[in-house]
Amino acid sequence: MILQEFEGTLYPINPHAEKILNRQVYPNIRTVPEPVDLAIIALAAPIVPKIVQECGENGVKGIIIVTGGFGETGSETGTELEYEIRRIASQYGMRIIGPNCIGIFDPYTGVNSFLVPRERTIGYPKRGNVAILSQSGAILVTLIEWCAYRGIGISKTCSYGNAAINVNESHLLDYIKQDNRTKVIGMYVEGVRDGRQFFETLKNVTQVKPVVISKAGKTNAGAKATRSHTGSLAGSNESFNAMFRQTGVITAIDLEELLDICNCFVTQPLPRGNTVGIITNSGGHGVLAADALEQNNLRLAEFDSKTIDQLHTLPQHCTPSNPVDLAADADTERYEWVTKLILNDPQVDAALVIIIPSGPNIEFQTIKKLIGVIKNTDKPVISCLGSTFKQFERYKRILEGDGIPVHTLPERAVRTLGALVEYNQWIQYGDEKKEKRVL
Amino acid sequence: MILQEFEGTLYPINPHAEKILNRQVYPNIRTVPEPVDLAIIALAAPIVPKIVQECGENGVKGIIIVTGGFGETGSETGTELEYEIRRIASQYGMRIIGPNCIGIFDPYTGVNSFLVPRERTIGYPKRGNVAILSQSGAILVTLIEWCAYRGIGISKTCSYGNAAINVNESHLLDYIKQDNRTKVIGMYVEGVRDGRQFFETLKNVTQVKPVVISKAGKTNAGAKATRSHTGSLAGSNESFNAMFRQTGVITAIDLEELLDICNCFVTQPLPRGNTVGIITNSGGHGVLAADALEQNNLRLAEFDSKTIDQLHTLPQHCTPSNPVDLAADADTERYEWVTKLILNDPQVDAALVIIIPSGPNIEFQTIKKLIGVIKNTDKPVISCLGSTFKQFERYKRILEGDGIPVHTLPERAVRTLGALVEYNQWIQYGDEKKEKRVL
Repeated sequence: MILQEFEGTLYPINPHAEKILNRQVYPNIRTVPEPVDLAIIALAAPIVPKIVQECGENGVKGIIIVTGGFGETGSETGTELEYEIRRIASQYGMRIIGPNCIGIFDPYTGVNSFLVPRERTIGYPKRGNVAILSQSGAILVTLIEWCAYRGIGISKTCSYGNAAINVNESHLLDYIKQDNRTKVIGMYVEGVRDGRQFFETLKNVTQVKPVVISKAGKTNAGAKATRSHTGSLAGSNESFNAMFRQTGVITAIDLEELLDICNCFVTQPLPRGNTVGIITNSGGHGVLAADALEQNNLRLAEFDSKTIDQLHTLPQHCTPSNPVDLAADADTERYEWVTKLILNDPQVDAALVIIIPSGPNIEFQTIKKLIGVIKNTDKPVISCLGSTFKQFERYKRILEGDGIPVHTLPERAVRTLGALVEYNQWIQYGDEKKEKRVL
Repeated sequence: MILQEFEGTLYPINPHAEKILNRQVYPNIRTVPEPVDLAIIALAAPIVPKIVQECGENGVKGIIIVTGGFGETGSETGTELEYEIRRIASQYGMRIIGPNCIGIFDPYTGVNSFLVPRERTIGYPKRGNVAILSQSGAILVTLIEWCAYRGIGISKTCSYGNAAINVNESHLLDYIKQDNRTKVIGMYVEGVRDGRQFFETLKNVTQVKPVVISKAGKTNAGAKATRSHTGSLAGSNESFNAMFRQTGVITAIDLEELLDICNCFVTQPLPRGNTVGIITNSGGHGVLAADALEQNNLRLAEFDSKTIDQLHTLPQHCTPSNPVDLAADADTERYEWVTKLILNDPQVDAALVIIIPSGPNIEFQTIKKLIGVIKNTDKPVISCLGSTFKQFERYKRILEGDGIPVHTLPERAVRTLGALVEYNQWIQYGDEKKEKRVL
C-alpha cells in the first residue's frame, strides 16, 4: 500500500473524516496546500466526474480511477460517465488511468495504488527489470505475488482496467519502451481500444525490447466474459494471432509461462541460433525435452566430432548423444565435465540441464559446481529440477539466485528457450521469418 | 527401499559379501533355504541370463531386472541377451519385468524395488487408489515424489523399462484392471511392443476404469531419444492419437497434468453433462477459465431463471452471470451463498471455485465454509487458488485434505474437468462421441 513505501507527500481526502491512519485528512482537493501530481480516486462511480473536475481545477496532472461501475456494466449510464470524465480530462490536459483498475506499483518510486496491504501478501517483489501491464487488477496482484515468491525483480507495473478515458495499453507501452530499467514487458490483455494503434505501437516497441503477451478472451465463452469484466471487445483470436505474429510479440500460453519467459529474457543472453544441448540424469525427461524442442522450432544440437569423441569416454550405460543421458548414478564430476563440454561445443547455441535431485550421487556440491560452469558461458542455460527431493527448494533458490531459471517440467523449460529464439529471429529477420512456437 | 517397509522375508544374494546391512548374505539363489516368489536382479547385463537360469531352477516365479545395457544400447549383443533371457523365462514359466527399469513400489504390500533410499526422498506416497505405470524409472520416481508431496494416494506402481522379456504395458494393464484398490491408471509411455495388443487391452480396461496417458516420443527428435532410452519405437504420433481416441484413453499434456487428472478421477464424481458454473473474486481468472472451458469441450452453464433472480441481489459491482464475479471485496458469506446456489442449479453439472486468497475479506473461515458446501454436493467441484498469499499453503492443504483438488492456473483446473467429461462420454457413447479436449 502506498503509505508504507512512498517517500513523497500524501494527502488523504475525505469529507467525513478528520484523521485516516493518523494523518490529517482534507475535505476536498481544493483545501490541499500544494499542487498534486497524482490523484487516486476510489469513490462511487456517479460522483467521480465531479471529483475529476475538482482535480482539474487544482492542477492535478494524473489520475488513477480505481472504482468500477462504468462501461463494463454494459449500462448506458456507465458509458456516459466515462465520456464525461474524458471530456473533463481533455479540458484540463490530465492523463487518467482506469476506471475499474488498481493502478500502479513501482518498486523504484514506492508509488503503489494497490489496495492490498502488505500483511495480506507474501511481500512485494524486489526492484528489477520486468515491467507488467495488466488489464485485470487481480491478475496483476497474482503476477506480482508470484514475482515476490520467485524472486523476479520488477521495474514498473500498471493495471489499466477499462482504459476508457485517455490512457490505454498503447500509451503505457510507449512510455515503458523508454524506461531504461525495463528489459522486457509482460502483458495480460483482454481486448484493446484501438487495434491499429496497438499494432503500430507493438511493432515499434518490440524493436527495442521483447513484449510477452497472455491474451484472454480467445473463445466465444471467454470473449463474453471479458465484456462484463473490463467492458472490452476481445476481438477475433485469429486477428490477434496475426497481429502478434506481424509485430514480433511473444505469446504465453498462461500466466505462469508469462513470468517464465519474462524471467528468461532478463536473466539469459539471446542465443545465436536454435540448437540446444540437453544434459540429463533421466532418459525420460530427455525424451520429453526433445519432443518440446521440435514443437518450439528448436533443434537438438548435432555435436561437433570432438565432443562426440569425448562423450564416448563416459561409462557405457550413459548415452553419448544428444540428449546426453548421464544415467541414474550421475555425480558432480560427470555433470560438471559434460556441461562444460557441451557449452564449449560450437554447434550448441543453448543448453538445458535436467537434474533429478534424488539421484543417489547428486549433492549440494553438484549444483554449486554447475553454477560455476554456467557462469562462464555466454550462451543461455535453463535448468529443470525434475522432482521434489527435499533439497529441491534449496537447490532451486541457489540456482535462481545466480540467474539460472529453474523449472520442474522439461516442456516449460524448453518453451522459454523457444521464446528467446523467436525474439532473436524477429530482431534479425522481422516478420519474414514467421516460425512461431506451437501454442 | 524394500528393506524399510516389506514385512516378508528378504534374502540378499552376493558371492563376495557375508553381510549386507547386517543380514546374512547367500552366495547364490541355490543356497537360499526356501522357494522365492520374486527375485530382483541388479547385476551387469552379460551375466544376467546365467542368474535367470539359476532362478528358474530354484522355482522363482517372478523377476525384476533392474540392470540396463540390453536392447536400448542398440547393440546386437544387448538384443541377444534379451532373447536368451526370454527363452529361459519361457522354459521355466517365469514372468520378468524389465530389463532397464526400477520395478515396483506397492504401498499396500511394502514391495519396493526402487533404488531410492527414503532419506533422499520427501517420503513415499500414502496408500490410495491411483496406479502408475511408467516406461521410465526416473519419471516414475518423479511422479511418486510429487504424489507424496501433494498427498495423492497410490495403489500400485511399476516401471517396466524395455519390456523386452515377457511383461509389457498391456500385461500390466490387464493385471491392474482387476485390482480393486485402483480407481484410475496413469501411464508414461514412450513406445509399445505390440500395438494391436495395446489397442485391445486399452479398449477393455477403459470400460472398467479410466486410463490417463502421457505419451513421449511424439516428434522426430523425441522418437530418436526414445530409441537410446528404452530401445522402443515411438511410432507415429498420429497412430497413437487415433488409438487413444478409439480406446477412450485420456491424454495428458505433461506429467503435472497426468497427476492432476488422476487425482481428479479419484476425488470427484463424474459429471452428468458438460456445463460448468464458475465462481470467482477475479474477473480475469474468470475469463481465462471461460476460454479454457470452450477449448476443452465444456460449456458455461446457462443458469436457471431462479438462480439468476437470486444472483441479482448481489451488490451491483458483482457480475450476476456465469462466470459469477464476486468482486474484490468478496467475503465468506458471499462465497458460501453463491457456491451453494450454483451447485443447486439443475443446469450446472460441475463447478470451478476460483479464490484469490489475498482478497481483503478472504479468511480461513471462507475456506472452511466452502468445504462444508462442497461436501454436500454430488457434483464435481475443483478449486483454483490464484495467488501466493502467505496462507496459500494452509488453504491448499485443507482443501486437498477434504478431497477438493487445488490448482493455481485456471486452465489446468478446467482441463481436469474436461477429462472427467471426456471419460463419461466414452463410457456412455463409446467412440461415436469423438470430442477430445484440445492438446
